[in-house]
Amino acid sequence: MAAKIEGIFTPHMVPLDGQGNICETELRRYVEWLITKGVHGLYPNGSTGEFIRFSPDERRRIVRIVCDQAAGRVPVLAGAAESTTRETIDACQTYAEYGARAVAIVSPFYYRLGAESVYAYFREIALNSPIDVTLYNIPMFASPIDVPTIQRLAELERIVGIKDSSGDLPFMMRMIRSVRSARPDFVFLTGWDVVLVPMLLLGCNGGTNAISGVTPELTRRLYDLVRAGNIAEAVTLQYRLLELFDTMLYSADFPEGFRAGVELRGFAMGQSRQPMSENQRIDRAGLQRVLQCILADFGFVEAPAEGCPPRTGSVERDRVAQITANVVHELRQRGVL
Amino acid sequence: MAAKIEGIFTPHMVPLDGQGNICETELRRYVEWLITKGVHGLYPNGSTGEFIRFSPDERRRIVRIVCDQAAGRVPVLAGAAESTTRETIDACQTYAEYGARAVAIVSPFYYRLGAESVYAYFREIALNSPIDVTLYNIPMFASPIDVPTIQRLAELERIVGIKDSSGDLPFMMRMIRSVRSARPDFVFLTGWDVVLVPMLLLGCNGGTNAISGVTPELTRRLYDLVRAGNIAEAVTLQYRLLELFDTMLYSADFPEGFRAGVELRGFAMGQSRQPMSENQRIDRAGLQRVLQCILADFGFVEAPAEGCPPRTGSVERDRVAQITANVVHELRQRGVL
Amino acid sequence: MAAKIEGIFTPHMVPLDGQGNICETELRRYVEWLITKGVHGLYPNGSTGEFIRFSPDERRRIVRIVCDQAAGRVPVLAGAAESTTRETIDACQTYAEYGARAVAIVSPFYYRLGAESVYAYFREIALNSPIDVTLYNIPMFASPIDVPTIQRLAELERIVGIKDSSGDLPFMMRMIRSVRSARPDFVFLTGWDVVLVPMLLLGCNGGTNAISGVTPELTRRLYDLVRAGNIAEAVTLQYRLLELFDTMLYSADFPEGFRAGVELRGFAMGQSRQPMSENQRIDRAGLQRVLQCILADFGFVEAPAEGCPPRTGSVERDRVAQITANVVHELRQRGVL
Amino acid sequence: MAAKIEGIFTPHMVPLDGQGNICETELRRYVEWLITKGVHGLYPNGSTGEFIRFSPDERRRIVRIVCDQAAGRVPVLAGAAESTTRETIDACQTYAEYGARAVAIVSPFYYRLGAESVYAYFREIALNSPIDVTLYNIPMFASPIDVPTIQRLAELERIVGIKDSSGDLPFMMRMIRSVRSARPDFVFLTGWDVVLVPMLLLGCNGGTNAISGVTPELTRRLYDLVRAGNIAEAVTLQYRLLELFDTMLYSADFPEGFRAGVELRGFAMGQSRQPMSENQRIDRAGLQRVLQCILADFGFVEAPAEGCPPRTGSVERDRVAQITANVVHELRQRGVL
Repeated sequence: MAAKIEGIFTPHMVPLDGQGNICETELRRYVEWLITKGVHGLYPNGSTGEFIRFSPDERRRIVRIVCDQAAGRVPVLAGAAESTTRETIDACQTYAEYGARAVAIVSPFYYRLGAESVYAYFREIALNSPIDVTLYNIPMFASPIDVPTIQRLAELERIVGIKDSSGDLPFMMRMIRSVRSARPDFVFLTGWDVVLVPMLLLGCNGGTNAISGVTPELTRRLYDLVRAGNIAEAVTLQYRLLELFDTMLYSADFPEGFRAGVELRGFAMGQSRQPMSENQRIDRAGLQRVLQCILADFGFVEAPAEGCPPRTGSVERDRVAQITANVVHELRQRGVL
Repeated sequence: MAAKIEGIFTPHMVPLDGQGNICETELRRYVEWLITKGVHGLYPNGSTGEFIRFSPDERRRIVRIVCDQAAGRVPVLAGAAESTTRETIDACQTYAEYGARAVAIVSPFYYRLGAESVYAYFREIALNSPIDVTLYNIPMFASPIDVPTIQRLAELERIVGIKDSSGDLPFMMRMIRSVRSARPDFVFLTGWDVVLVPMLLLGCNGGTNAISGVTPELTRRLYDLVRAGNIAEAVTLQYRLLELFDTMLYSADFPEGFRAGVELRGFAMGQSRQPMSENQRIDRAGLQRVLQCILADFGFVEAPAEGCPPRTGSVERDRVAQITANVVHELRQRGVL
Repeated sequence: MAAKIEGIFTPHMVPLDGQGNICETELRRYVEWLITKGVHGLYPNGSTGEFIRFSPDERRRIVRIVCDQAAGRVPVLAGAAESTTRETIDACQTYAEYGARAVAIVSPFYYRLGAESVYAYFREIALNSPIDVTLYNIPMFASPIDVPTIQRLAELERIVGIKDSSGDLPFMMRMIRSVRSARPDFVFLTGWDVVLVPMLLLGCNGGTNAISGVTPELTRRLYDLVRAGNIAEAVTLQYRLLELFDTMLYSADFPEGFRAGVELRGFAMGQSRQPMSENQRIDRAGLQRVLQCILADFGFVEAPAEGCPPRTGSVERDRVAQITANVVHELRQRGVL
Repeated sequence: MAAKIEGIFTPHMVPLDGQGNICETELRRYVEWLITKGVHGLYPNGSTGEFIRFSPDERRRIVRIVCDQAAGRVPVLAGAAESTTRETIDACQTYAEYGARAVAIVSPFYYRLGAESVYAYFREIALNSPIDVTLYNIPMFASPIDVPTIQRLAELERIVGIKDSSGDLPFMMRMIRSVRSARPDFVFLTGWDVVLVPMLLLGCNGGTNAISGVTPELTRRLYDLVRAGNIAEAVTLQYRLLELFDTMLYSADFPEGFRAGVELRGFAMGQSRQPMSENQRIDRAGLQRVLQCILADFGFVEAPAEGCPPRTGSVERDRVAQITANVVHELRQRGVL
């Protein structure tokens, strides 16, 4: 029987080269680094991994590279959603051949479908997939999966877990309560980094956390602290990760802030396939300076040569300060001031 | 200079065969029928057309067939959004070669991007497209395009209009006020069928209306009535279309109700690529009976042999009645009653 | 039989004196002016009238003054919602004695109640009120009233209409379709100024429009133009009112922008009972300058001595310009620049 | 110096007599029971306490009775929001005289005010209140208080804490991070019962939990377990409280389910001032049966004579079962089946 999916699975990004194509060398180097740093598994083609910005062929190539590089050292949870169930099932077969441990299928997106449609969608995939399936609930981007639907879907053996990125604790508790007694093997993973500690305490089996692609050591340590019952230290670390997470999440359109973070750890990520305006380039440079300061606090990088501003402890205030600085800077350049 | 995009553009669906593939024969027959019934243009690969449920190759094939069948008799507005700007620009080139009048590009979806990203995205496409571009704003499914962004994008010559499916009248007025004086040629189309009359009165150039794929005669007549200044009759027809629209929109996950409607007009649409549960099949059969009654009122089809229930004038009440009937039916079948 | 409630009912504000108390003299002068300018009725204790910021006794006093001043020349629709149905019914009795034509009762607020509770609430009031009742639906502030509930409530003779401030045209159409055939006397009023023209065209009987407290002449003219079938001119005026409305609505927390507008028409409104920060005072002064420019375009007031900035036609851009100016102003004052 | 506000403060309901008036005897008996059962403090005039459904005089009377009955044994946190800051400040003075430990002021409601208005509102009250003030953030019912605003307000000595009912853990963490270092005495209370354990672990000082008005023993025990570091047992209890909470919260419009719960503990609560429809009475009877079963599991009451249905562990499913039963029951009564 296959190993249970537990611990920290990194929904990693994909480095691009100067032409905007997948940079295989850097992807392998990045995946290798993540494994070395202690993540329990890899999760290509997630939302952080920008699956929607790759073609079907590219998505396959990403999973192939990642499975190959992981070489069985850590399990791979492969994002497999395609435009139809038929193509998704095809992808499931391919990823099974590549050696993925399971696939993760996001709920239908673009249209906001009701519970019956969500059920029918996953049911068809589960009945035809040769590889274990985890559901992926991310209601801010895709049709929500509600508790009764999860309960119905958990009756299908092929469905082995759910990754939930709502960050909603009571929802997680309702899911666990509804499913666990009948399916003790069913796995619950949280995709909302800033509540990882409470989620684990309430019974989650692990997380698929974007931040673990930037600071895999810390997410792993958070997990280990909770498992060791060292709650006080885990909470302290959770607070520190909150600042890092907020900075990467709210200072640029997702997941660009995380790309900026991975770059600071020494990987050439290339430009996003989502174009940026001139204003956004300026903002991103400012964001990266702030990020460098936070990462320097952890000792991962050097602080910027020009020094770090005193942080107020409030991302909002820091951002306002940064924005004001940028506005003034720009006004000066335009000769307005 | 190319003709202005005006009037009713049908965001038509795509018939599928028994294997779930595009049925070219039926698609051509359907497109031909729409042209005969008087729509001003065709709009393949829209939201109603389920563009997200086709592969990139299939989307190209759909546009090729539609352009070919239209044969210049009516303009084609081709949905061209692909997973990256590079691929979208490729599609623009292809659709220009096929003879499309313009492309429609939906705002980036899945992620909810901010205004700067939306601007940068459309700007890059507009600067590289060999064919006129219309923006497509559908905030319930994709990143919203706000008024200042539209104003900035209207500075690019290649962008010639916007299709807005928010149904928000004041928003439409704000767009028109912000853009029209500087760009009198810029076209505003509404995708929200039930406010077509007021939208036209407030200055819209036309609509891309799902209902025109089911009752092209009526949408066309609505348009003609407004243009002729016959407001009273237009309003009466608008009210009748409201019932039809609500029934198709709210009785099944979009756009399944419209597929049911097109079938009633005599086209074999095939099963949706989105799987249906058993419950949904029962609901859909019930919906189709109600739809048949409404279409019979207009004289488009025969009323069902078993007769039509008295309609209360309230879709909500009618649906409750229908649901209750179904529940009881099912309970009886299961031997509960 | 009492006259039908039709036309423009002004949800007027209440002038306060230097101590923050109701200024009866100015209230009478203001009400008199509104009548002179042609509004069809008065609507004290609405949302614009800040009913929630007055005590139960003050609310009674406001209605007493307004009924007395109107003296039967125009009907008074008195906002009568109190903290319980018992007290609300008391207020209904009092307002009947004062000579109000009808009361308007907002749906229960603070808690968001479901349809059954909303129904039970209005039913109890309707069965005990000695005066005609209009429902007041304002879903952004109070529990929503849905179409089936309106249909049920319209079975009660005492309920004679609904004032809807959702601004949602299809919702208005659904209400009208559900109720009008059984209750042709039932009145539909819209509280969303910027869609007054389409609402009237679709069958509304009138409006309770905040803007009519600032420019009663214009709202009245809009109404008359639609009734006379002069749609083109009505639409042009509607667009001009959009700019005025947006400026008053979005440049300060509601209804402070409308207070600023009424002041410009020559009434001493006093300070709001909602405290303002220093920043807000600066913003309000800026808003009032913009408002003065817009009102000067209509010829109602003189333009500011320092002149008016060129308006871009986009409230958003104008506001950004204003904000930037304010930021720079403040930074200079603080010695930052 | 006054004692820090810590632990479980019960936002208790107010028993009404047959005429719908405050029943002082029962209120005293209920408050006495709560104290006996171990809650750390009392919180009259909260949202659970239906403050909005009492007159200003009644609200004063409630606080007077509660302070008198508590007689200094436990601190009283008195809800003091009135329609204007002036009247609110009056209430603050009165409640100080009654011996309340502090007041709780809900953010301005009905209108949704922006951050500057919220700041100005609380600032004015804080500068004029003779008694400590706690902010009350409940964004589903009132204007939201954001993190920068809390940070600014925490600069005022009179403001000593915040009660947050958003249930949003990352928001709570952001507040704590922004305020605690500068104001270590500042108190954070959570009003969202189902996340009490994680909130306490992340640094909250206590809770104002509706459920503690029904099962004060359990909320107190939850608190004690967390403080004693017995996380595993606390989590188990938290899961059991989730079922109870969901049943009371989602089976009737808030806070009617809690009234039903308090009744089961032996207090005559009287009918709500919010009228109920016939359907609602039937639903409430069904709810009370389910509640009785849950409370019987804890040993607080006897199970219903007719026995308890097997619970599936999913409130949604149980509710569907209950609804279906009710529908069938009703249909039978109407002779439909």
